[in-house]
Amino acid sequence: MSDVVSFEPQCPLPHTQHNSIQLGHGSGGKLTHQLIQDVFYPYFSNPYLSQVHDGALFQIGNEQLVFTTDSYVVRPLFFPGGDIGKLSVFGTVNDLAMGGAKPLYLSCGFILEEGFSIETLSRIVQSMQLAAQSVGVQLVTGDTKVVERGKGDGLYLNTSGIGVCEHRFAICPQSIRTRDQIILSGDIGRHGMAVMAMREGLEFENPLESDCAELWSPVRLLLQAGIEIHCLRDLTRGGLATALVELAETSGNSIEIEEVKIPIESAVQGACEMLGLDPHYVANEGRFIAFVPEQDAERAVAILRQHPCTKDSQIIGRVLEENKQEVVIVNTLGCERLLDRLPGDQLPRIC
Amino acid sequence: MSDVVSFEPQCPLPHTQHNSIQLGHGSGGKLTHQLIQDVFYPYFSNPYLSQVHDGALFQIGNEQLVFTTDSYVVRPLFFPGGDIGKLSVFGTVNDLAMGGAKPLYLSCGFILEEGFSIETLSRIVQSMQLAAQSVGVQLVTGDTKVVERGKGDGLYLNTSGIGVCEHRFAICPQSIRTRDQIILSGDIGRHGMAVMAMREGLEFENPLESDCAELWSPVRLLLQAGIEIHCLRDLTRGGLATALVELAETSGNSIEIEEVKIPIESAVQGACEMLGLDPHYVANEGRFIAFVPEQDAERAVAILRQHPCTKDSQIIGRVLEENKQEVVIVNTLGCERLLDRLPGDQLPRIC
Repeated sequence: MSDVVSFEPQCPLPHTQHNSIQLGHGSGGKLTHQLIQDVFYPYFSNPYLSQVHDGALFQIGNEQLVFTTDSYVVRPLFFPGGDIGKLSVFGTVNDLAMGGAKPLYLSCGFILEEGFSIETLSRIVQSMQLAAQSVGVQLVTGDTKVVERGKGDGLYLNTSGIGVCEHRFAICPQSIRTRDQIILSGDIGRHGMAVMAMREGLEFENPLESDCAELWSPVRLLLQAGIEIHCLRDLTRGGLATALVELAETSGNSIEIEEVKIPIESAVQGACEMLGLDPHYVANEGRFIAFVPEQDAERAVAILRQHPCTKDSQIIGRVLEENKQEVVIVNTLGCERLLDRLPGDQLPRIC
Repeated sequence: MSDVVSFEPQCPLPHTQHNSIQLGHGSGGKLTHQLIQDVFYPYFSNPYLSQVHDGALFQIGNEQLVFTTDSYVVRPLFFPGGDIGKLSVFGTVNDLAMGGAKPLYLSCGFILEEGFSIETLSRIVQSMQLAAQSVGVQLVTGDTKVVERGKGDGLYLNTSGIGVCEHRFAICPQSIRTRDQIILSGDIGRHGMAVMAMREGLEFENPLESDCAELWSPVRLLLQAGIEIHCLRDLTRGGLATALVELAETSGNSIEIEEVKIPIESAVQGACEMLGLDPHYVANEGRFIAFVPEQDAERAVAILRQHPCTKDSQIIGRVLEENKQEVVIVNTLGCERLLDRLPGDQLPRIC
């Protein structure tokens, strides 16, 4: 096969603003978007990637499957409300759930740094197993690599997942329709600020705890009730704002949301102000937005409020008639401002 | 969910020889085996992992699927005959092929170090796409993370893959039977020695080139011809010897192989002697062994010899009546010695 792959750079140089990787390329914001557009899409373009969704949706035999992957480089490995193991299971489970798929099987790939504590590894493995058990998925295949001291940071993890769709909906950005209502499943910003507070040694009266949780259970409730879900998106890197911007672009619609409807805990708000961050862009690991038709919206909210993880669900906005692909946030005074991707990185290595 | 995962080490301390990760834990030899047994299996044990195979085999609907994952940390990123991109596609394709599955879809997870060249990344992405195209798989979902300078080594890659079985065989270690013949698909040790030679700056008259290649095409030929394949295993980390030891243990059989039947290029032999390595333990990325019933063996060899990648296939041994789970290698003088896993690491970061 050696004649297939040339070692000469026959590819045109990518048109990027930077020649080398910046921390911001991992932020989920503008730089990440640009890297994907400039470096990955020219080669990897196919109908599955064009879905621009958390996972790929395809059919094998009569089964509609979702397949997804995520690497986890969060620092520190343990944080209030979770750890890299729990995060790596729920993160991938959530990407499957966002495709409307029942999570079935996970893989895990460990990249260990020489000198990493085996006791710590064991605690993380236990945490993965507890998380997997709680949501009924199985860790069925794995891989372990070791790199020299100073070439890693203790542990990096990858999990990939397979799920199966047991409904008739195509839950993806392309299904978003004018007048769809947008439901937010709870308060925002807790995961990012819990990790940052720990990293920066900040202390609060009410300590911040990550929202890290599995989202399949609440999504299943909606599906079981026959709610016609158009699209789901979990609010990880880049937070609520980036998710909305991406979905406006991919679906070709404009979106309007009301600032006052978005719950933010006072400790999160305080920590954000202290660090100069906008909570709308802060990562969550147990929050999502759902796009549902007008007639289903109130019922969907009522169903979600029955589940502890989504008890604070509410409608925060809607899809507009215009197709300017803009996201408008309206404050209590009725003033509008546009949301866009952040240019750089607010919070490196948050997941 | 925070009550599910405890942060106290309630798990018993793992009974390992070491308290911290050694390079040898990534070798594929005894330490890797021990780490998996002591740290992963106590938590992750399930019928799929108990298959102890390159991938997990399960059914969804009417489809028999194989799912596998591998992380790639090879150093250097480019080597004669391949690069981390090609390796990451063919490596995972090969793990699917070893389960007898037609490779369909791959995921890829990039862990980039701040400062990594975007031009180099682009070349690697192109190489992945060319490799994927050559074997007819699609890269359908991905993820990009960035870590700070000094917390990585340019690029680490994970690929996971899904394939579908279109035959009636259960190709796995448990299907190995007494008197099965063992076919080796070509010469051994080239990948490991090509990478090592480059890393150590060794020069040879005939430069060593990795055997990095996809193995689905030759496996498909066997399946199309109706060969009753019992088991397949690619000879990656730990090489031919470790693969045989693992399969003897998992299947509960003893194995005998003839040293003289194992092709080793003189340059590989020379490099191994220079570095004090045993070529039977050196990694390959385009070689496999097949276990087939006696009556199919000659025909299987003839079929494999029709494919350029497996043109030097031959029968190197057989499964014995005894169930001592030993691997015996017989030299030209008829002297026997036992093969075992290597205790530590011959070649770190070879894949």
